[in-house]
Amino acid sequence: MLVVMDNHASADQIERVVQVIEEMGYQARPMPGLQRTTVGLVGNDGRVDGSRIEALPGVAEVIHVSKPYKQVSREWKQENTLVRIAPGVVFGGEQIQIIAGPCSVESEDQIVTAARQVRAAGATALRGGAFKPRSSPYSFQGLGKRGLELLAVARQETGLAIVTEALDEDGVHRVAEVADCIQIGARNMQNYSLLRAAGRAGKPVLLKRGMAATITDLLMSAEYILAEGNDQVILCERGIRSFDTMTRNLFDLTAIPLVQKLSHLPMVADPSHGTGLRDKVTPMARAAVAAGADGIIVEVHPNPERALSDGAQSLYPEQFKSLVEELRAIASAIGRSVATLASARSAGTAPVTVG
Amino acid sequence: MLVVMDNHASADQIERVVQVIEEMGYQARPMPGLQRTTVGLVGNDGRVDGSRIEALPGVAEVIHVSKPYKQVSREWKQENTLVRIAPGVVFGGEQIQIIAGPCSVESEDQIVTAARQVRAAGATALRGGAFKPRSSPYSFQGLGKRGLELLAVARQETGLAIVTEALDEDGVHRVAEVADCIQIGARNMQNYSLLRAAGRAGKPVLLKRGMAATITDLLMSAEYILAEGNDQVILCERGIRSFDTMTRNLFDLTAIPLVQKLSHLPMVADPSHGTGLRDKVTPMARAAVAAGADGIIVEVHPNPERALSDGAQSLYPEQFKSLVEELRAIASAIGRSVATLASARSAGTAPVTVG
Amino acid sequence: MLVVMDNHASADQIERVVQVIEEMGYQARPMPGLQRTTVGLVGNDGRVDGSRIEALPGVAEVIHVSKPYKQVSREWKQENTLVRIAPGVVFGGEQIQIIAGPCSVESEDQIVTAARQVRAAGATALRGGAFKPRSSPYSFQGLGKRGLELLAVARQETGLAIVTEALDEDGVHRVAEVADCIQIGARNMQNYSLLRAAGRAGKPVLLKRGMAATITDLLMSAEYILAEGNDQVILCERGIRSFDTMTRNLFDLTAIPLVQKLSHLPMVADPSHGTGLRDKVTPMARAAVAAGADGIIVEVHPNPERALSDGAQSLYPEQFKSLVEELRAIASAIGRSVATLASARSAGTAPVTVG
Amino acid sequence: MLVVMDNHASADQIERVVQVIEEMGYQARPMPGLQRTTVGLVGNDGRVDGSRIEALPGVAEVIHVSKPYKQVSREWKQENTLVRIAPGVVFGGEQIQIIAGPCSVESEDQIVTAARQVRAAGATALRGGAFKPRSSPYSFQGLGKRGLELLAVARQETGLAIVTEALDEDGVHRVAEVADCIQIGARNMQNYSLLRAAGRAGKPVLLKRGMAATITDLLMSAEYILAEGNDQVILCERGIRSFDTMTRNLFDLTAIPLVQKLSHLPMVADPSHGTGLRDKVTPMARAAVAAGADGIIVEVHPNPERALSDGAQSLYPEQFKSLVEELRAIASAIGRSVATLASARSAGTAPVTVG
Repeated sequence: MLVVMDNHASADQIERVVQVIEEMGYQARPMPGLQRTTVGLVGNDGRVDGSRIEALPGVAEVIHVSKPYKQVSREWKQENTLVRIAPGVVFGGEQIQIIAGPCSVESEDQIVTAARQVRAAGATALRGGAFKPRSSPYSFQGLGKRGLELLAVARQETGLAIVTEALDEDGVHRVAEVADCIQIGARNMQNYSLLRAAGRAGKPVLLKRGMAATITDLLMSAEYILAEGNDQVILCERGIRSFDTMTRNLFDLTAIPLVQKLSHLPMVADPSHGTGLRDKVTPMARAAVAAGADGIIVEVHPNPERALSDGAQSLYPEQFKSLVEELRAIASAIGRSVATLASARSAGTAPVTVG
Repeated sequence: MLVVMDNHASADQIERVVQVIEEMGYQARPMPGLQRTTVGLVGNDGRVDGSRIEALPGVAEVIHVSKPYKQVSREWKQENTLVRIAPGVVFGGEQIQIIAGPCSVESEDQIVTAARQVRAAGATALRGGAFKPRSSPYSFQGLGKRGLELLAVARQETGLAIVTEALDEDGVHRVAEVADCIQIGARNMQNYSLLRAAGRAGKPVLLKRGMAATITDLLMSAEYILAEGNDQVILCERGIRSFDTMTRNLFDLTAIPLVQKLSHLPMVADPSHGTGLRDKVTPMARAAVAAGADGIIVEVHPNPERALSDGAQSLYPEQFKSLVEELRAIASAIGRSVATLASARSAGTAPVTVG
Repeated sequence: MLVVMDNHASADQIERVVQVIEEMGYQARPMPGLQRTTVGLVGNDGRVDGSRIEALPGVAEVIHVSKPYKQVSREWKQENTLVRIAPGVVFGGEQIQIIAGPCSVESEDQIVTAARQVRAAGATALRGGAFKPRSSPYSFQGLGKRGLELLAVARQETGLAIVTEALDEDGVHRVAEVADCIQIGARNMQNYSLLRAAGRAGKPVLLKRGMAATITDLLMSAEYILAEGNDQVILCERGIRSFDTMTRNLFDLTAIPLVQKLSHLPMVADPSHGTGLRDKVTPMARAAVAAGADGIIVEVHPNPERALSDGAQSLYPEQFKSLVEELRAIASAIGRSVATLASARSAGTAPVTVG
Repeated sequence: MLVVMDNHASADQIERVVQVIEEMGYQARPMPGLQRTTVGLVGNDGRVDGSRIEALPGVAEVIHVSKPYKQVSREWKQENTLVRIAPGVVFGGEQIQIIAGPCSVESEDQIVTAARQVRAAGATALRGGAFKPRSSPYSFQGLGKRGLELLAVARQETGLAIVTEALDEDGVHRVAEVADCIQIGARNMQNYSLLRAAGRAGKPVLLKRGMAATITDLLMSAEYILAEGNDQVILCERGIRSFDTMTRNLFDLTAIPLVQKLSHLPMVADPSHGTGLRDKVTPMARAAVAAGADGIIVEVHPNPERALSDGAQSLYPEQFKSLVEELRAIASAIGRSVATLASARSAGTAPVTVG
């Protein structure tokens, strides 16, 4: 941490800053300059609340040098963390995983059909919401417990791993019983009670970036999960708020190499929410893989015109099939490959079953 | 809802849209134009998911005309809702309420001293966090249950109403037992499970705007609370994310007259989080009252240099005293007044006590 | 400037940074810390391009300590600069100036009527565009030279000072011949050729903040004008881009105290463009004065329903009259006053006439 | 255009809207709904200023249906416009063009070396600023006329087409004499005088998106150039302002398919300014091509550590060489190819020479 003094700061004011830093248990290193003095704070300043020092007379600015997160950082762990949500379905290695399926679980027929279609096209995991966060209390809120049961049926039919969202602590327990990976949605990225509960649930977590979250904010939220002893965390870019309402969100693909440099955790991208427009999903999914994403999560519905939610951004099954073929070509162009369930199965064991 | 067709949409495509609207149980009214046709959907379209129609061939755009919220709207209820959090402490009338106190409850001495200071200066309610949402899991997270007890002590000493934040369903129950008003913070504005719990807790709710929330998003979140049968909701502007990091947030004061036109609920403003800079709190609190705010919530600490959180944006007690005097002059200039606890007490009963 | 090295930076990498700084003609001061080393650059670093150093191996980050602007800074000049655009019409002192008038000059009748109305209500300067920057090439672009002549007529009829926009170098010369103050619009805030021309034109300049401009960007653009030897610059907040499209722009009133602390130049606010909604102009103009603005620039049209541009955000003359009365009360509440032309005239000379 | 009336609008208020629309020379079509009435305006409403109608009593909202631009639209011209800046260097077809070179022209040795390096690696055009828009008046502003002469030398040495920026009307004439394509920078995207001058200069124009520009704003600015009779316009995404300052800008790759759907003009991307970080340029250039960009413009410097501007985001020549190889593989994966100067030359004539 560096404390930048005002141009006209007095010697007493500088001395006061030094004293306060020492009272806080750190060493202070004043560095006089031609225009102004800065005072360095030496020691692990991860927990220092700079606001106390910012409030002192003569202080112009406090600059944090060390990063505010720890366990998620590549400085903490240099090699990639591999997150294994089911046998052979591993994020963070050379292979790119594709998670696909409808926005919401609507019926057994719908989810099983969707699962078969996306598996045939090349997905390794199935998405589908049982608990849905909707901006209106009067919108369809998901099938709840019944939705989870239908996801389990779809897994038994196809062998796909299951990724589904939890909205609260009670939901975490229910989802953890059935799913292979607990999704925390963008609206809950800074719901710290939920993050802690997910961290303790004993399953991998897919954490989506909030609409106003900086990269640092995202990593700080992941830190809550790791702080509970769970390092099986997949981060996900899904679009942030911007001033142009032509797309639902602004899909920030630079977040992928940014996160991968700062953290050892895998990073995937969601072009469906990232754009909100069906015909933009394919080019932006290609772009995400080209940018280095460790996976893609994409909405596919057997019949988007009849979807209860997000119909306008869901791919038709045949569009998804073409997309996977394009992604294979892109992955190959950058020296990676798209995972297949066959390769997953050949790697091993039977599908995980519901307890 | 209006469905705008492509320039080159065929008669069949238009007919298809009409059919789908009718299948959904509404009437369709095609309106051919020189360049393109629009199709109106007649009926209460509050619950219509336009995405099904957006997905149809030939559709250029779907435009929602009716607002997506209902009970929070001035179309639903024309006169202001008065939210009474304690005897005489009423938001939404002619009087402006001032909520003040430290970011966090730190000790009995700190919170009681703060309460006495802000009461003496003219506040009618005390703020202070017992449960703190912190971006780092390693930062001070609040005193929890002990913090609530200390808030109750401060109320008994001063008669101030208590406003404090709840972070999860369990916290809502605890806070509701003690506080006069449950605060839902910006990070949880779209934590719908928490909103529902707060709506059922039997106490007024102060709902802060999220960092990426539009005015519509804020009103939709309030709708979750009203949908549980609780209309005692105070909305709060506290700054949104913007591209200039010179201030912690961008304080959007236009939100005040916008909300007051669209909704019957009272709207207050938090210049402490809205700016994050102590010397900007006073001018922006004045501006908020001049813009028509029904109240102000401001951080004041007996000793900001030693605050465990938000020290740099907390006012010194004597600064707060001057601020209240300025607010009285501004309120008077626009035909309103700043409430006082004396006037509250003369209006009635003893302070609410802890159960 | 401070160079923050990587955690694992080698002694050679640090030495290299020191060498490069010394090659650039500055002194380098390495400061080893427990986790990482920082290297301070001593000397006036206003012109240092840090990107050369950022590119060196082992460098994590370069942090600029000195501000990038000079002559606009309060560190350069401590007392307020008074900008006098006409006899008695001075920005930056105790008095608040009100600039009012239509978006565009449309006809002699329209501009003279508007001028009389706003003068009667209390304005000291007249706004009105002769050259209009329109997002469409097919929209009304202003009356050009004829518009300037009509503004001169309106001044002769009323004594109001004239503020009008220039769009290019040629326009600067034309505007400078007639107007009392040259306005540079938000879209041209970083049109450096135009800023230089305005700086050399021998008239005061009103510089509007760009839609994506930080406070620092705004001050840097003003620096271009001062660098030409002209310190008669008024800055203007007029709303920035944000994610909520309910208002045309997001009116950032905190910019007022921010600029006033960092710079000696006066700062005014434009609630008409800042909100884009007529019924929000009055509360936000009040808020701007309460926040400390040195003036207000507001759109008023004799007949807004027939305005050729910006009709929806123009006040009716009688609304403007009420607004000025409210602003007087607010100004008085914070120890300032609203200037009047009468007081300007009593202070002195005849209106400036066109050459 | 659709006029949405208030819920409680009276019959008289609706009639008034109809009258005003008819006075303006259009047909009005009232459409009563269960909750409220909307009134459609029929006719080409591209030039209608809705603000007059928004100002009428009883009007809740005015919604524009037709797009505000014309000649740039795919509705105006369905097939792609091919922009040919030099023999064989064509944007908008199957081939992807690569423009590369330093931020600024610094010396003959620097620009000729850079040109040879980027040509050897596979670029077809050379970038390099002779006139530089710098946020500080005290920063290096480019070599001006001498810089243009050096670009001409570099072209004669390598055969690369020249793309360089003009800052004002005078600069447009100078640049047009030498360059193959006139660049208009992000800060000048809404400098309409400059756009008009560029439209009349008789050379292709590369128009960069402004930092706060929506897609519609970008297309409207291009419309200014086409309205002067010049359809040889290349659009360019280069990053917009966002709340996360970890990158210089937020690189919005979804803009590529958005623009390509709405307009017939080619769209390229600038990952150097889009990210501002050297190690992010390669993944984001790959992503841009995968998203469908018609070209890439990238900063490469023979010696980035010594660059006078933008050193930290300039690629080393060997990094650029690897990048081009990766782009070839990505292009091939999506059925396109990266253009080469050899293929350009085999297509025809000698390099364009300076007049």
